[in-house]
Amino acid sequence: MDPIKVMVNGLPGNMSTKAAEHILQDSSLKLISYALTGPKTEATETQIGSEAVRLIKPNERQQMIESIKKAEGMIICVDYTHPSAVNDNAAFYCENGLPFVMGTTGGDRTLLVKMVQESGIAAVIAPNMAKQIVAFQAMMEYAAETFPDVFKGYSLEIKESHQQGKADTSGTAKAMIGYFNRLGIPFTKDQIRMERDPEVQRSKWGIPDAYLNGHGWHTYSLRSEDGTVFFQFTHNVNGREIYARGTIDAIYYLAKKIDQGVKGRVFTMIDVLKGV
Amino acid sequence: MDPIKVMVNGLPGNMSTKAAEHILQDSSLKLISYALTGPKTEATETQIGSEAVRLIKPNERQQMIESIKKAEGMIICVDYTHPSAVNDNAAFYCENGLPFVMGTTGGDRTLLVKMVQESGIAAVIAPNMAKQIVAFQAMMEYAAETFPDVFKGYSLEIKESHQQGKADTSGTAKAMIGYFNRLGIPFTKDQIRMERDPEVQRSKWGIPDAYLNGHGWHTYSLRSEDGTVFFQFTHNVNGREIYARGTIDAIYYLAKKIDQGVKGRVFTMIDVLKGV
Repeated sequence: MDPIKVMVNGLPGNMSTKAAEHILQDSSLKLISYALTGPKTEATETQIGSEAVRLIKPNERQQMIESIKKAEGMIICVDYTHPSAVNDNAAFYCENGLPFVMGTTGGDRTLLVKMVQESGIAAVIAPNMAKQIVAFQAMMEYAAETFPDVFKGYSLEIKESHQQGKADTSGTAKAMIGYFNRLGIPFTKDQIRMERDPEVQRSKWGIPDAYLNGHGWHTYSLRSEDGTVFFQFTHNVNGREIYARGTIDAIYYLAKKIDQGVKGRVFTMIDVLKGV
Repeated sequence: MDPIKVMVNGLPGNMSTKAAEHILQDSSLKLISYALTGPKTEATETQIGSEAVRLIKPNERQQMIESIKKAEGMIICVDYTHPSAVNDNAAFYCENGLPFVMGTTGGDRTLLVKMVQESGIAAVIAPNMAKQIVAFQAMMEYAAETFPDVFKGYSLEIKESHQQGKADTSGTAKAMIGYFNRLGIPFTKDQIRMERDPEVQRSKWGIPDAYLNGHGWHTYSLRSEDGTVFFQFTHNVNGREIYARGTIDAIYYLAKKIDQGVKGRVFTMIDVLKGV
């Protein structure tokens, strides 16, 4: 079978680089040697392993994509760019018939979905590409729907640690609050204990030095009113490996859907996980 | 509304005593001042708070139950007896039209269910009355069904601690292994790390002295092959409070089902949790 051709946009960013490296190592995938980049990127090229990838600025992308498509045929795009670029990039993919995996967060998400639905392409759109975490969130959502208030009377503590650069509260932690609320525990996002200090992360949390600049550690602790029952759920991610793996799965899933002739459909990581 | 009349069998055992105390404190429930006990029990009476409960031996139970039913009318039985008594007690309940909540484990469980289905009564049968743990198991089962193999490549460690008297592996831990297997992780029950030494439980696990003789602590740890992702689920129960609370919920649920005229039906704690 011919390899699936993939263009990774957002290079030379960290996450897109990691995804491109994984694609390069997978013999069923072929990394296209072109990538969309932001208007402020100075480099014109980036190296992924032994491959040089030409970086394309927004003002030249329309012209370039036409010749790339002519040379390569069907291409899947992976997007790890910037929240400010989400909708503009999506419009570009839709107009040029480029199915895509959107790993970039932010932007107008409703509009994003609508664009795909009104287009002739299919896309996987996932604010979190980590399959195991997505599965855990789905478990929590299932519990919230099936057993509302089962933790009524319990107290909750949420602790999360992320690299210093991350200013906002973790999206995963916010989603989890919604599930805990439905499980009977009042809790607001101001009550999350956020850690952003590398010194504390190293000494108190035991986060390895190598990952102080890229990690997401979460712990949810529940205690019954009388103190006799204690539940704790932890998911700690170091680095970006888990997201790159999820991206690869999303690419395979999307390629299968394209083969089936699916158009105008948005898939989530839950769909990728279920594999149907 | 008249209180629901409840006979707690297995007194003066620890778990039945705890359940009886909860019933006594609940103004919507009335504790019947008679209880079935084992053939070896020497006492003829036991004290639950301010109430004296007469203990009934197997050889006198048929005669006694007839007069109790005459005096009290509809009664729900709660059974915290002994694995060896499960089927015999269930036969007694079925023959005498006594709906029951079976919290005792062991016995022939298939036969137990069959007896109820062929009888004119309804029962809640639950090897674990702890609602929150049952909900957690249901979450795991949902994940195993919905996302098979999502943790493929991960390694698993299971640690559990129970009071010294508990010789066998925890039933909850065994059920969890089944879910983890379906989630992609090979694991057998011999790999569970069981702790039964009170000294280690105190010093290494931090289990409070008061609960060394009655607790169930479980921790499941998952680590990705490359070591960058770590998940951990913990549920620690001290004492028997959580089971007593679940028992009360099961009684209310069963009373509702009886009111609806349900006969020959077995319910689980999942049904109780869902409340439908």
